[in-house]
Amino acid sequence: MQRYMPRRKKLFINKHSDIGMPPGSLPDSANNVNQEFLNVVITNINYDQNTFKKETLLHYQQIETELESIKQSSDQSIHWIDIESLEDLSLVKMICEKLDVHPLIMEDIAHTHQRPKIEDWDNHIYLVVKMIYITNTKEIIHEQVSFILGKNYLISFQEQKGDVFNIIRKRLEANKGRVRRMQADYLMYSLLDVIADNYFLVLDSINESLITLEEQISINNEMHYIKELQSLKQEILFIRRFALPFKEMLIAIMKEESDLIREDTLVFFKDLQDHTIQILDSIDMMREISLSIFDTSRSAMNNKMNEIMRLLTVVSTIFIPITFIVGVYGMNFKYMPELETHWAYPAVWGLMLTIVIGMLVYFKRKKWL
Amino acid sequence: MQRYMPRRKKLFINKHSDIGMPPGSLPDSANNVNQEFLNVVITNINYDQNTFKKETLLHYQQIETELESIKQSSDQSIHWIDIESLEDLSLVKMICEKLDVHPLIMEDIAHTHQRPKIEDWDNHIYLVVKMIYITNTKEIIHEQVSFILGKNYLISFQEQKGDVFNIIRKRLEANKGRVRRMQADYLMYSLLDVIADNYFLVLDSINESLITLEEQISINNEMHYIKELQSLKQEILFIRRFALPFKEMLIAIMKEESDLIREDTLVFFKDLQDHTIQILDSIDMMREISLSIFDTSRSAMNNKMNEIMRLLTVVSTIFIPITFIVGVYGMNFKYMPELETHWAYPAVWGLMLTIVIGMLVYFKRKKWL
Amino acid sequence: MQRYMPRRKKLFINKHSDIGMPPGSLPDSANNVNQEFLNVVITNINYDQNTFKKETLLHYQQIETELESIKQSSDQSIHWIDIESLEDLSLVKMICEKLDVHPLIMEDIAHTHQRPKIEDWDNHIYLVVKMIYITNTKEIIHEQVSFILGKNYLISFQEQKGDVFNIIRKRLEANKGRVRRMQADYLMYSLLDVIADNYFLVLDSINESLITLEEQISINNEMHYIKELQSLKQEILFIRRFALPFKEMLIAIMKEESDLIREDTLVFFKDLQDHTIQILDSIDMMREISLSIFDTSRSAMNNKMNEIMRLLTVVSTIFIPITFIVGVYGMNFKYMPELETHWAYPAVWGLMLTIVIGMLVYFKRKKWL
Amino acid sequence: MQRYMPRRKKLFINKHSDIGMPPGSLPDSANNVNQEFLNVVITNINYDQNTFKKETLLHYQQIETELESIKQSSDQSIHWIDIESLEDLSLVKMICEKLDVHPLIMEDIAHTHQRPKIEDWDNHIYLVVKMIYITNTKEIIHEQVSFILGKNYLISFQEQKGDVFNIIRKRLEANKGRVRRMQADYLMYSLLDVIADNYFLVLDSINESLITLEEQISINNEMHYIKELQSLKQEILFIRRFALPFKEMLIAIMKEESDLIREDTLVFFKDLQDHTIQILDSIDMMREISLSIFDTSRSAMNNKMNEIMRLLTVVSTIFIPITFIVGVYGMNFKYMPELETHWAYPAVWGLMLTIVIGMLVYFKRKKWL
Amino acid sequence: MQRYMPRRKKLFINKHSDIGMPPGSLPDSANNVNQEFLNVVITNINYDQNTFKKETLLHYQQIETELESIKQSSDQSIHWIDIESLEDLSLVKMICEKLDVHPLIMEDIAHTHQRPKIEDWDNHIYLVVKMIYITNTKEIIHEQVSFILGKNYLISFQEQKGDVFNIIRKRLEANKGRVRRMQADYLMYSLLDVIADNYFLVLDSINESLITLEEQISINNEMHYIKELQSLKQEILFIRRFALPFKEMLIAIMKEESDLIREDTLVFFKDLQDHTIQILDSIDMMREISLSIFDTSRSAMNNKMNEIMRLLTVVSTIFIPITFIVGVYGMNFKYMPELETHWAYPAVWGLMLTIVIGMLVYFKRKKWL
Repeated sequence: MQRYMPRRKKLFINKHSDIGMPPGSLPDSANNVNQEFLNVVITNINYDQNTFKKETLLHYQQIETELESIKQSSDQSIHWIDIESLEDLSLVKMICEKLDVHPLIMEDIAHTHQRPKIEDWDNHIYLVVKMIYITNTKEIIHEQVSFILGKNYLISFQEQKGDVFNIIRKRLEANKGRVRRMQADYLMYSLLDVIADNYFLVLDSINESLITLEEQISINNEMHYIKELQSLKQEILFIRRFALPFKEMLIAIMKEESDLIREDTLVFFKDLQDHTIQILDSIDMMREISLSIFDTSRSAMNNKMNEIMRLLTVVSTIFIPITFIVGVYGMNFKYMPELETHWAYPAVWGLMLTIVIGMLVYFKRKKWL
Repeated sequence: MQRYMPRRKKLFINKHSDIGMPPGSLPDSANNVNQEFLNVVITNINYDQNTFKKETLLHYQQIETELESIKQSSDQSIHWIDIESLEDLSLVKMICEKLDVHPLIMEDIAHTHQRPKIEDWDNHIYLVVKMIYITNTKEIIHEQVSFILGKNYLISFQEQKGDVFNIIRKRLEANKGRVRRMQADYLMYSLLDVIADNYFLVLDSINESLITLEEQISINNEMHYIKELQSLKQEILFIRRFALPFKEMLIAIMKEESDLIREDTLVFFKDLQDHTIQILDSIDMMREISLSIFDTSRSAMNNKMNEIMRLLTVVSTIFIPITFIVGVYGMNFKYMPELETHWAYPAVWGLMLTIVIGMLVYFKRKKWL
Repeated sequence: MQRYMPRRKKLFINKHSDIGMPPGSLPDSANNVNQEFLNVVITNINYDQNTFKKETLLHYQQIETELESIKQSSDQSIHWIDIESLEDLSLVKMICEKLDVHPLIMEDIAHTHQRPKIEDWDNHIYLVVKMIYITNTKEIIHEQVSFILGKNYLISFQEQKGDVFNIIRKRLEANKGRVRRMQADYLMYSLLDVIADNYFLVLDSINESLITLEEQISINNEMHYIKELQSLKQEILFIRRFALPFKEMLIAIMKEESDLIREDTLVFFKDLQDHTIQILDSIDMMREISLSIFDTSRSAMNNKMNEIMRLLTVVSTIFIPITFIVGVYGMNFKYMPELETHWAYPAVWGLMLTIVIGMLVYFKRKKWL
Repeated sequence: MQRYMPRRKKLFINKHSDIGMPPGSLPDSANNVNQEFLNVVITNINYDQNTFKKETLLHYQQIETELESIKQSSDQSIHWIDIESLEDLSLVKMICEKLDVHPLIMEDIAHTHQRPKIEDWDNHIYLVVKMIYITNTKEIIHEQVSFILGKNYLISFQEQKGDVFNIIRKRLEANKGRVRRMQADYLMYSLLDVIADNYFLVLDSINESLITLEEQISINNEMHYIKELQSLKQEILFIRRFALPFKEMLIAIMKEESDLIREDTLVFFKDLQDHTIQILDSIDMMREISLSIFDTSRSAMNNKMNEIMRLLTVVSTIFIPITFIVGVYGMNFKYMPELETHWAYPAVWGLMLTIVIGMLVYFKRKKWL
Repeated sequence: MQRYMPRRKKLFINKHSDIGMPPGSLPDSANNVNQEFLNVVITNINYDQNTFKKETLLHYQQIETELESIKQSSDQSIHWIDIESLEDLSLVKMICEKLDVHPLIMEDIAHTHQRPKIEDWDNHIYLVVKMIYITNTKEIIHEQVSFILGKNYLISFQEQKGDVFNIIRKRLEANKGRVRRMQADYLMYSLLDVIADNYFLVLDSINESLITLEEQISINNEMHYIKELQSLKQEILFIRRFALPFKEMLIAIMKEESDLIREDTLVFFKDLQDHTIQILDSIDMMREISLSIFDTSRSAMNNKMNEIMRLLTVVSTIFIPITFIVGVYGMNFKYMPELETHWAYPAVWGLMLTIVIGMLVYFKRKKWL
């Protein structure tokens, strides 16, 4: 079984370094504009119903040119610029400034502790969610993804390298489904849909861990299983913190009457919203199950204790009286008439056997044996 | 008593095979159109106030012809096409396409993890619920049923073969009640009503299991009863997950102002809504009862432990001191004046009896005996 | 103390016999119209400000005539027809049909598992509540009462014979209070008010049982008290299930703008609503109290266990070491120099006394004695 | 520490004597009008900005005259008639009838189980709250206070003699603050404000009891402390039942657009509402604290049990094996070669010491010592 | 690890000294106007886009002059008067009277038990929050901060000396960020933002304490760790009491349509609101974690108990029977044939070894060893 470690250390923001910064601003490093960036992978996909182009951007200038062409919307094609890793904050800053994004959003993109939410800024929409997925090494990754959706473009900022979007990239390239026929809002929907699908995969895996744990605990009620159970419960709660505002965000999209999300895409967002409700249902069910496993384990502990004590009591209650009897005839008094007779020794054995059998019958009746 | 197994494995969707599919599409198998289908039972019922026709459809073409005639609404009669089992997805696809059903609904029908809901698509209504019932072998079946309600037709998609609708079929044939006089919306109501009735039957059966369990636990507090109790509690929670959105769906129908559900049918849906509230009430009550059985069982365990320890303590406390005394006079010191006297042995017995009686009185007063 | 048995068996409806019936219909027995009815008591009260007439109806025809005269409203007087027991469903059917009551309501009257509710059907109002009261034999009776309120009449259907309405009957006859001066809606209010008063009486009685139980548990923490406590808790929850929708129903009356409930009667319903809120407050308080008694009983159990174990530990810890010592000098080695000396025996006693006193001081300091 | 007794007996209304009374009526005793009343203290305060008059009314006629002058509002002054104790219901009836108060309110004043609420009756406002305060003997008093607020008068009915209003009386007499400059609504506000202040005092006192209890429980985990803790918890819940509707009532005042409560007084009521929210906050906090003390006490019990059992186990485990050894050499077999040798006795001692030391090391490593 | 003490003593207001005071008034000390004040630090900052002036006010007259110039708004600059410590209530009174602040607000500023809230008084806004921060000595400080926001000024009243505002003061002086370009509302936002940031710091520190505690408890389940855990839980609840109304207040600001908070500042308040939601999320998560640590610690206790009892039972069950056997052959009967034979002694040893080995195998199979 895979072991999840409690993720408590990630609960809070390390805003220490930020405190003292004016709101809506980034650390100084954001100003050291390099012409190249090493730890960031930028993929630019440009498509319409007929054409598809995918390239990896390597230089600042490439991005600037791309953003320029987006702003002039010289063509009808959709631009998806995907930025993996937030290490180069100057890049974030540059993109945001080019697209007239409010500094507060710039700050939200950079700080990876956002609660999923959507904000409508007339000429673009800002949307942030948590992406969770399981790696090949069975580790659960939590990662923040921010989207900036414009009329003909979608910019996605991922917290780390690695994501769950390859499916969409392939579908775009192969022109499968309706994604190439639709606008940028549908692209964003598709990405969010894949993110939601991965919630199911993660929950599925946690559920399997719960089932395994339940069996192990019912066999052997050891403390490290209990601790694992508590870790799983916390992991579930942790995911709930992402999933609940995810759902709320999708409800907000329904109400938002933005031109950027078209009427015919809304029905897909409605479907996605149903998925998030299912996610929350499953989470609540799993929470109840983990509680119930814990309760059972406590009862099992008590039960085992009863069993242990019953054994001790049965053995003690049988032997303590007869041990007393043999003690009596081990006394060295000069005048103990019983000691002298022939039948005394077998008589004592008889007495002791009677006591033992009586006890055994008594315990049998009490169902202790 | 019947044993329900925890249904956790069914908690989550096996969307693995789907991930990578564009939203609103079905697996490739859906395109392998066969002209016959083996594992699906399709029943077509066609009725109006005066006529009734029931046939089992066996070929694709039969269904196509039927759907064609529905679309032309050449007659005033009601068509109910009931599809049992979702194994042949190409069939689902074909029907949906014929009736201009949105691909997302097609996907919802195929994935049997939907939360009960209703969706109004102008020319038809899509509605999905969970049907639960008990088989003759005392097994609880959970099954998804989707309805597509049009002006003069109702299509029902069942997850598996076997259902609870025979009553309605017979009533239709025998022209009992008002079902033949009403429209397709009333037919759908009748089916939902039977589904709700079966919730009561299932809860009734779980309730009986609870009562049996309570008695068994009060006699013999063994772990496997506790585990069964937890299973029942999870089963109750599981049903709650179906019943709550069932109720919400019925509230939504009230507010929906669709032409497809007539004013005079709404009063029946209102009545059905009352039933689902009763179902939820019963579920909450049963949950409280299962908690209370668990609490009682824990107290019983503690109580038994007290009893065990009391016996051990009474026996030990009485015999340990007198065993010490006999030990004293088992010592081999040369100069132990007591050993020589005649009255010493009876005196020791006297002392020991005094101690035992004193102890017994003490425990009697403490109500430990 | 009176013992309430858990009422779980009554939790669910025995709809088994009904399944297969078209909605809004009654079992076949409802059609076997007898001209006389044995197990039903029908009381007809006819009054206005000046006159009062009370008779027991024995024949179908009497009822029909009465209902006829109500419909023609030939006079200004108020008619209250009270039907005790639902055994003769054909009677219910006949009355409902005479007064043009919808079949669904007919069904609701017949099934005694309704959640309290109110329904406005233009020419009459249907209202159903649960009546609870304590009999002379200290049994709690739960019974469903349905009302049909028309312009000049009130029909009440009781589940069983026996009720709490005698007070109102006497008040009507004696012309006490304003009931004779008011319309049928005030009569219905008066009956509901008496029903609510009896909730207080029942809760009062349960509360006394709780107080008695608490005392008994604090003296003697036996399992059957715990079970009784859990029964009481379930009884409280059971009553809550009736009281909550009772309150909601009264809130609904406030909002309902029916001509059948006059403006000047509404102020009385508002007052009644305050009473139901008090009932719910009391129920919630009693629930907390029962939980708190349970918690205390568990602590008491643990405490007793501590006490038991402390005694065992004290006795064992004192005697085990000195029993070892006397064992040592019971050994039969040939060369044990201590055995030969005169002072050895008293010295051993001295040693043992020292150990015992040391132990006692130690336990005294630990407050275990 | 002061001990609060659980107040469960007061949970319910003793409406027994009332059942059978028409709604809105008082017991017959209310009609035995005496010309004097012994157990009721009636204080009449009459003031405006310049004058202040305070008198104790002793006769029915005095009150009637006073009420007459109020109704004619011959002067601009404010009348505050304060009735302490509800023993003389005929007095309540007389006052209510003089001021055209609805009989239902008359009933509410007489029954001291009202939930705090406000009712607007056009020409006067009826308001009822619970006053709680601590007497000099450290007893907590719960008492119902009803107010009838008219244009130029305020009538207050207290359940018992004794109140917390002396401060206001003195302030009125001394013309401190703005109370003399304002109308009757401000007077009512002032009284409610003093009542709310006393909630803080009572909670403060309960909080101190909680702190004391926590310390005592951490020293000595005896059952009577646990019971006291549960009593305190119930007391807190009891006060919550008064405080919550108190707040709701103040919110209702904000929305009520009555002429009797002036715009410039509303700001004071808003402030009072903030106080009641603080009261509820404190109550919820104290509830959590009492739960946390209980949890700690349970852990402490378990911990103590562990300690007891550890001692027993250590002592037993060390002595039982060596007692067995000395038992072996206490056997009387003829041929036990060990017994004959010189070094056997010290060797046995050596063996036993080795065992004891081994055990001690083992327990030391396990941190049981 | 740092130890937080429970803060229960601060739960309630010491209004004792106030009771009897007319609402909206301050203690008499507020009238002893001194010309100088010792324990209060007053900092006056005066800035616009180009100029910045900071001075410490020492005399009443200085403040009066300053307030005079604010009222005449002779210049376009922003005035921030920051009062640290509320010891000199006459100062509060003077400032409030100068700025026409309602006496009730004056009272709210003086009583440091306010629930965070905002009140719009047309010409100024009153806002109160709780500031929490950690000192260098690792102590958590709770402190009330009141703001009065006018068109061109902000007055801040702090409960004690010492705050978290130095960052803002420096930013103002250095003209970093947009604070100098904006109005007084933005200054207030900046201060609230720093306060919210410090909530994160405090929670972060508590979280670290939780992690440390969890480790310590898993090693050594001692009572003082449990008590510390409960203290932390109470601290968390305590902060929750501040954070929840903080969030509600920010929602209220959004709805408040005051001229004093400009449209372009609102977007920052919206961002701040998101932060408070994150704070509440973290608090709820930490609460769950502390519960889960507690549950684990209880299971660990039970587990340890099981282990202790298992050892006792194993040792007792093995030695008690064989001790009985040696007791048998310690009896002094004259006629015990076994005693005489040569092989008897080794045979008894054999028997005893068989029993011991049998027991060990039994316990091994039961996994008790």
